[in-house]
Amino acid sequence: MEIAEPLRVVIEELNKLPSIGKKSAQRLALHLVKKDKKEIEDLIRALTDLKDKIKFCKTCFNLSAEEYCSVCQNPKRDKSTICIVEDASDIIAIENTNEFNGIYHVLGGVLSPLSGIGVENLKIKELLERLKSDHVKEIILALNPDTEGETTSLYLAKLLRPLNIRITRLARGLPIGGDLEFTDEATIGRAVLNRIEM
Amino acid sequence: MEIAEPLRVVIEELNKLPSIGKKSAQRLALHLVKKDKKEIEDLIRALTDLKDKIKFCKTCFNLSAEEYCSVCQNPKRDKSTICIVEDASDIIAIENTNEFNGIYHVLGGVLSPLSGIGVENLKIKELLERLKSDHVKEIILALNPDTEGETTSLYLAKLLRPLNIRITRLARGLPIGGDLEFTDEATIGRAVLNRIEM
Repeated sequence: MEIAEPLRVVIEELNKLPSIGKKSAQRLALHLVKKDKKEIEDLIRALTDLKDKIKFCKTCFNLSAEEYCSVCQNPKRDKSTICIVEDASDIIAIENTNEFNGIYHVLGGVLSPLSGIGVENLKIKELLERLKSDHVKEIILALNPDTEGETTSLYLAKLLRPLNIRITRLARGLPIGGDLEFTDEATIGRAVLNRIEM
Repeated sequence: MEIAEPLRVVIEELNKLPSIGKKSAQRLALHLVKKDKKEIEDLIRALTDLKDKIKFCKTCFNLSAEEYCSVCQNPKRDKSTICIVEDASDIIAIENTNEFNGIYHVLGGVLSPLSGIGVENLKIKELLERLKSDHVKEIILALNPDTEGETTSLYLAKLLRPLNIRITRLARGLPIGGDLEFTDEATIGRAVLNRIEM
């Protein structure tokens, strides 16, 4: 049987999304058809709004519906501490901890010669521009603890050192709730090296 | 931080879909924003087409972009055998087996007094209407092998018996590739009862 064309196309489009396989895409598409049209209309409207209204904050490149994002607009945030992240999704993750009251800078990626992502593809020039005008005292490098993240952190640390700003990065160690026995050696090694006074 | 409104709404809408949790919805929404706008535009167009163009086949209530679905329109299909299913998704599952060359009838649900679904909510009247005009020789009841499916099958079998049509249902037994040791007793019991000559 040919699956009806409009249904087939939606299944294909959903299947392109990350972590949505063919079976899930089919289930989602059939779910949307089965329900009254309100659900699919709401979804279409939401996606259209997302496409038309979301943009990048002019200061930090966070996602925002306005020119400047809610973090940059908030007068209570400490403008002297900038946390550098790879992606806007990392901002959501850090905000959810409620442990950080500074502001952000989204690089839009990490250095990756293999994928052809170099210094000029990241928002590094814009970061240097910000550091000229703002009175920044500390830069926190909050990139992923993998090879590309580490490389990018090292590059930025070297680049920023002459500016006489405190440069830190997120602690490495045992994840909370983890199990020593099942933690990889590299992580335990770091945790031993960076052990803290009790 | 407030997540930007258009992003928050899309996350909420995606979260309403089956098997998409809050974290997945967030990942999907951020993925759609990150890519160039083509991907989100394609998805919106596909969903709009689905909403506007998909309808139910006038004969069997399968999903279709035309008045009659591709199965009912196909002159090679055996019109004397009707397979009764709960949902259009079941048609896709059966078609994928390539083992059935008859036509279908979608009930649109199963009898379920607890959910308030009675005979009048299913396409049973329409089935009887079809049986009047078509020269049907066999009805295959292909409902789910659970309580509600079994109840509905029994109801239909009783209802259709006076019409002098062969009434069958899908075999119950060991699933292919399954493991006897880990199969539930009810299934093994059925498999013993319905054992087949070698």
